[in-house]
Amino acid sequence: MAKKCCGKYKKGKGYCNKCPKIKRKYKNKNKHYKEQKNKKHINRLEKQMAFIIEIDKLKTIQRQSYIIDGSKKENDAEHSWHIAVMALILSEHKAFKKVDMLKVVKMLLIHDIVEIDAGDTYIYDEKGNADKREREEAAAKRLFGLLPKDQKKEYYNLWLEFEDQHSKEAKYANVLDRLQPILLNYEAGGQSWIEHGVSKDMIMNKNVATQEGSKKIWQHFETIINDAVKKGYVKE
Amino acid sequence: MAKKCCGKYKKGKGYCNKCPKIKRKYKNKNKHYKEQKNKKHINRLEKQMAFIIEIDKLKTIQRQSYIIDGSKKENDAEHSWHIAVMALILSEHKAFKKVDMLKVVKMLLIHDIVEIDAGDTYIYDEKGNADKREREEAAAKRLFGLLPKDQKKEYYNLWLEFEDQHSKEAKYANVLDRLQPILLNYEAGGQSWIEHGVSKDMIMNKNVATQEGSKKIWQHFETIINDAVKKGYVKE
Repeated sequence: MAKKCCGKYKKGKGYCNKCPKIKRKYKNKNKHYKEQKNKKHINRLEKQMAFIIEIDKLKTIQRQSYIIDGSKKENDAEHSWHIAVMALILSEHKAFKKVDMLKVVKMLLIHDIVEIDAGDTYIYDEKGNADKREREEAAAKRLFGLLPKDQKKEYYNLWLEFEDQHSKEAKYANVLDRLQPILLNYEAGGQSWIEHGVSKDMIMNKNVATQEGSKKIWQHFETIINDAVKKGYVKE
Repeated sequence: MAKKCCGKYKKGKGYCNKCPKIKRKYKNKNKHYKEQKNKKHINRLEKQMAFIIEIDKLKTIQRQSYIIDGSKKENDAEHSWHIAVMALILSEHKAFKKVDMLKVVKMLLIHDIVEIDAGDTYIYDEKGNADKREREEAAAKRLFGLLPKDQKKEYYNLWLEFEDQHSKEAKYANVLDRLQPILLNYEAGGQSWIEHGVSKDMIMNKNVATQEGSKKIWQHFETIINDAVKKGYVKE
């Protein structure tokens, strides 16, 4: 650097501190660095916004449960909101003491996003459930792939963790995802169960594993299911 | 206790350890304690379930923005889900380093619940906004009042914190709540803005304060608003 100095000013530490030529060079270097950083930021923000715009479609993915007043079928965005709030409100009843609640809520908010491409698969539709995982994995890759690389990895892994049901967070999150439709169907007068000819055995077999995430909440839902049988909402 | 002992067995530490009478008393005491604890739990769970059932109504509270495909107006549950995901995805752009993200997400998930009683007040409706706070406070008291006492306090205070906009969490949460409708209106071709005759000044005045929560995100939305003027979605 000292070689490129104009030589008019006093030199310090091997290069001139006051030389206008060097200052200009430094100024440009900083400007270039700032521009690059800004560009990277804008690029990330653009990718994030593309994802945020794409997931708006979740508001059009219809589920099989009716909302409680029976006026319409629930969609995936409404369902995701409801179970995230449920997870927060009911957290004292979870089976494990140390659970990362932010992770649980994140999981619940994003776990159905894959249905934008793969569609909603009804829990009692055996045929639809056969290739569900394959369809949803392709969807997860495309949808989370809209995000910057690090976030794609984070959210894809979060979705996978929920699907695989090994962690405490995934097990507790699953309780809410499975039991919320039962609550809705019960409160709405069993409309969806009657339409699909659902029996008590079908409900029990598909949901009994949720007690791993919360025995207390599962017990409450057992009572509801038994009452639904009495009321004729589900077959004995 | 020693006085009530049958006296047939050896006594230790002032009372008989083996006396069948005392054992029975102890057993009953434990049973009573367990029953009380269980009752308290069931009582809490019942209150929590009442709240969870009541907030299902948020899925019927219609907002003024259309979803991006223009097929319907958005409701409060869908909006709450969308902004909670946005808060997570865009968190690197927030103005403050240390922000409790679980608190931000909680706030966003519950902040509109008051609209079940108070209805949605359009941001540019001056008349509706005059008594908005009063209506919403009464709603917050009734709705969060369905929860057990400690949770009523927690969620009422969380709602209040969001409304008062003093904390870092409230300021960052506000960015998403304010800017999501702008994103939706822009992407949906300005339908809602055109219907309400919204001008650039109206949008800027109502939303400029959001830059306190994130300058980066606000700058992105400034670009969107300017483009919306060019495209004729909002008046100059």
